[in-house]
Amino acid sequence: MDIDDWRRQLRTFAVQRHWEQFHTPKNLAMALSVEASELQEIFQWLTPEQSFQVMSGQRACDVEDEVADVMIYLLRLVDILGIDLERVVAAKISRNASRFPPRGLSPS
Amino acid sequence: MDIDDWRRQLRTFAVQRHWEQFHTPKNLAMALSVEASELQEIFQWLTPEQSFQVMSGQRACDVEDEVADVMIYLLRLVDILGIDLERVVAAKISRNASRFPPRGLSPS
Amino acid sequence: MDIDDWRRQLRTFAVQRHWEQFHTPKNLAMALSVEASELQEIFQWLTPEQSFQVMSGQRACDVEDEVADVMIYLLRLVDILGIDLERVVAAKISRNASRFPPRGLSPS
Amino acid sequence: MDIDDWRRQLRTFAVQRHWEQFHTPKNLAMALSVEASELQEIFQWLTPEQSFQVMSGQRACDVEDEVADVMIYLLRLVDILGIDLERVVAAKISRNASRFPPRGLSPS
Repeated sequence: MDIDDWRRQLRTFAVQRHWEQFHTPKNLAMALSVEASELQEIFQWLTPEQSFQVMSGQRACDVEDEVADVMIYLLRLVDILGIDLERVVAAKISRNASRFPPRGLSPS
Repeated sequence: MDIDDWRRQLRTFAVQRHWEQFHTPKNLAMALSVEASELQEIFQWLTPEQSFQVMSGQRACDVEDEVADVMIYLLRLVDILGIDLERVVAAKISRNASRFPPRGLSPS
Repeated sequence: MDIDDWRRQLRTFAVQRHWEQFHTPKNLAMALSVEASELQEIFQWLTPEQSFQVMSGQRACDVEDEVADVMIYLLRLVDILGIDLERVVAAKISRNASRFPPRGLSPS
Repeated sequence: MDIDDWRRQLRTFAVQRHWEQFHTPKNLAMALSVEASELQEIFQWLTPEQSFQVMSGQRACDVEDEVADVMIYLLRLVDILGIDLERVVAAKISRNASRFPPRGLSPS
């Protein structure tokens, strides 16, 4: 996956549709949250066990679709804000490694 | 960015901390939504104009931190569900290109 | 508005449809969050000024519908958890009054 | 619970702190969603069974606090938009009664 290439593609896509006026960082953060919520909506009435089977059910395509939307808005947001996604993820993984030494019993 | 490498790293990280019991698809979708909401919380009282300045303000690190958390939970979720992130994003971009021909006046 | 009466009505409604199995506190908290997100979705691309006109536009009924859904899931959640909604709201208003003396310049 | 009285109280509270500038419908819808997400965050790693015990645990006060925040922002939003909360909830309950006849097997 070439993050920079995707950022450029999505930027051009927005420019060609005159969507830059809508793509403020605030609106993109809202849109990202809305898409993440649409993704979780698929899981809301499922048991933990049923949630593992979601990709063999009727809503598999919806899951893929919402996952893609989350990723797309995240890429737009980091592009607009000039954030290096790879750097911040690597930094967070390494910070988590110090905060939670192996064999901890509960997630953050 | 090597998505597969990150997926592996995060998987090992979870296994070493016995977090697999918590990482059901349902819980990961919730966690993703919670992190996306923490990201938008940073923007909630800002004007559209102020939101463009967020990376030169006091909360720049918080923005980076929440962006990383969103990406990390998205990677965990696609790993658990066996979703090919690159494929679904590419498919969605191409679907959007048909749905919204260039020069449309409003975003989806 | 008689909160207790509504709580009873909604409880009976759930029981008659065998929905109690789905109405765990965790699922209701998710559902509440999903509905609040559907409400904010209506506003996501609007300017602050446009957002004041939403009730004279095409989506006025959607706003009312989502507002009702948020209230309904909040009532179900406090009912299941045995929370006295009036007491906790009154307590929070009085706590906010101490935390934010009049004439503060920014919201929490 | 006197909804109108609370709406007036919260309106005065906002005016006295010069918060009206922040309380656009768009920002209030965001804030409502953020609070609902903070509420669900408390439940995110719990099993369905554990979620029933949340009010006897360490986070009981957090649950009450977030429940109050959701209600407060909902009241501010309906006040700003001129929505009659009782009317829209009653309308939705009666619509749900037609949509889901008793003994349905799954929630909406």
